[in-house]
Amino acid sequence: MDRRDFFKTAAMGTAGAAMMSSPLAMFTSCAPKEKPCELRISFQEGTAPCKTLEEKLDYMEELGIVGLEPKGKNLAERVNEFQQALRGRNIRISAICAGFSGFILAEDPSVKADFDSSMRDIIAAAGELGSTGVIMVPAFNHQSPCMPHTLETRKYLCEQMHELGEYALKHNTTVILEPLNRKEAHYLRQVADAAAICRDSESAGVKCMGDFWHMKEETSDYAALLSAGTEYLQHVHIASRGTRKMPGEDGELDNYVDGFRALKQLGYDKYVSFECGCNGDKEILVPAAVQLMRTQWEQAL
Amino acid sequence: MDRRDFFKTAAMGTAGAAMMSSPLAMFTSCAPKEKPCELRISFQEGTAPCKTLEEKLDYMEELGIVGLEPKGKNLAERVNEFQQALRGRNIRISAICAGFSGFILAEDPSVKADFDSSMRDIIAAAGELGSTGVIMVPAFNHQSPCMPHTLETRKYLCEQMHELGEYALKHNTTVILEPLNRKEAHYLRQVADAAAICRDSESAGVKCMGDFWHMKEETSDYAALLSAGTEYLQHVHIASRGTRKMPGEDGELDNYVDGFRALKQLGYDKYVSFECGCNGDKEILVPAAVQLMRTQWEQAL
Repeated sequence: MDRRDFFKTAAMGTAGAAMMSSPLAMFTSCAPKEKPCELRISFQEGTAPCKTLEEKLDYMEELGIVGLEPKGKNLAERVNEFQQALRGRNIRISAICAGFSGFILAEDPSVKADFDSSMRDIIAAAGELGSTGVIMVPAFNHQSPCMPHTLETRKYLCEQMHELGEYALKHNTTVILEPLNRKEAHYLRQVADAAAICRDSESAGVKCMGDFWHMKEETSDYAALLSAGTEYLQHVHIASRGTRKMPGEDGELDNYVDGFRALKQLGYDKYVSFECGCNGDKEILVPAAVQLMRTQWEQAL
Repeated sequence: MDRRDFFKTAAMGTAGAAMMSSPLAMFTSCAPKEKPCELRISFQEGTAPCKTLEEKLDYMEELGIVGLEPKGKNLAERVNEFQQALRGRNIRISAICAGFSGFILAEDPSVKADFDSSMRDIIAAAGELGSTGVIMVPAFNHQSPCMPHTLETRKYLCEQMHELGEYALKHNTTVILEPLNRKEAHYLRQVADAAAICRDSESAGVKCMGDFWHMKEETSDYAALLSAGTEYLQHVHIASRGTRKMPGEDGELDNYVDGFRALKQLGYDKYVSFECGCNGDKEILVPAAVQLMRTQWEQAL
């Protein structure tokens, strides 16, 4: 079986599974919201096993991937490149993955100023590309000096996020807070916390996301994603759950059904985007990961 | 209508409502867990509009209240009093509300030592009384000097909670972490965070709770309580949601249906306990609050 045959078979399998179980899924999970429950998969630029952007997009289209998540670094210089490459394709820019300098909770004013100016450049470019938003982490553990984790800092963060969110809205996009696992970013570790910061930032331009890798921090994928809800959940990252490789590479650990159940109940209409490495042959493991996601999406009732 | 007639009418209304809607509720929410979904209401000692403990328990029995939540202070001296008073009644000790000296995240070793010894005395007494657990807050904002909110402190807290949890298990009870609103306790504000600390404490004696008053911090009552789940959710507090008075005193704000829906789906078999003041006539507002809870419990499908 060559690659094209593999894709055809995979696509038929998915369609067959959808025909069998979708009517029930639509009734039990999605009907209350009256929204479609389509799984919209996105790749980062490094996900597809190809060299050029055109080759990557061709590969993605064959697999039915509908989103591309570029890195934010120097995004303004690449707006035209992406616009040209996506013309006539069924692929849109999903979210933009960080890429700014500095960080928002920096104690050093010059580091905070770096963040402010570089983040705003990325937001403006993200808006031109029709992106759902720009992903950001308030502070990694290795970033210092960092403001202390206090009530006053939370208030400051909400005020700063409000400003960023309003700026993003003017550019028809958003800023997306990403909770990480505590070893990488103790400051923001859980989706419910990010969602509460969105609420208290009082700007429709402030959103949050869940990452199935970092969500090992959560006691329940389902509850975590529901806590963000339709109001705040703007993006989702996926990876294998033991080693952050392709979904499926960690066997039984790679169960996303409980989280997908939340997405379907919410009528989630944004992207689930790969952010992971790969330990084996991408030509096999990337399509297998996509198929695993589609199968589990159907199982999520 | 005298008070006894009011109780009879209220009880009949509840039974009627239960007959009409319980079969559906059992099927849609509780059947998967095969557990009963009974609303088990508890009062603190100050809730009933009576003077003596006997009068309070008589009043509670008439209203169908099945739990009593005493304060932890000097609990060891009161074990016999409670045991005598509860003999032959359909009321059990629910949780024990704090009452210890010091706090677990104190930087001052003598304050930490005060916590350790007083908390252990309360745990032992709670076990004698068959309590579900002893409620604790890791640190109120006003308590200082407090360990900083860092990854290292979280690790320390989990280690200390493990010790406490194992001690509680030996006494056939648990310790229950309570998240508060951020103005009272920034350190622990959300149920999902408390639940993750339970998990990482690696002791079946470490549990958590939700308080509908403090849960204004949450974006979703339903998601918050589900994040604790059957494994960690050991107690629930209730109050009106605008002013922390009797449920119902804040009108439409006092909606607990979304949270109750989570409790029913979990097959929650512990207590929902009043922790609130009262702005009006308790003889009217306490039974009305109980009735409101029972009505909303039935509505939670």
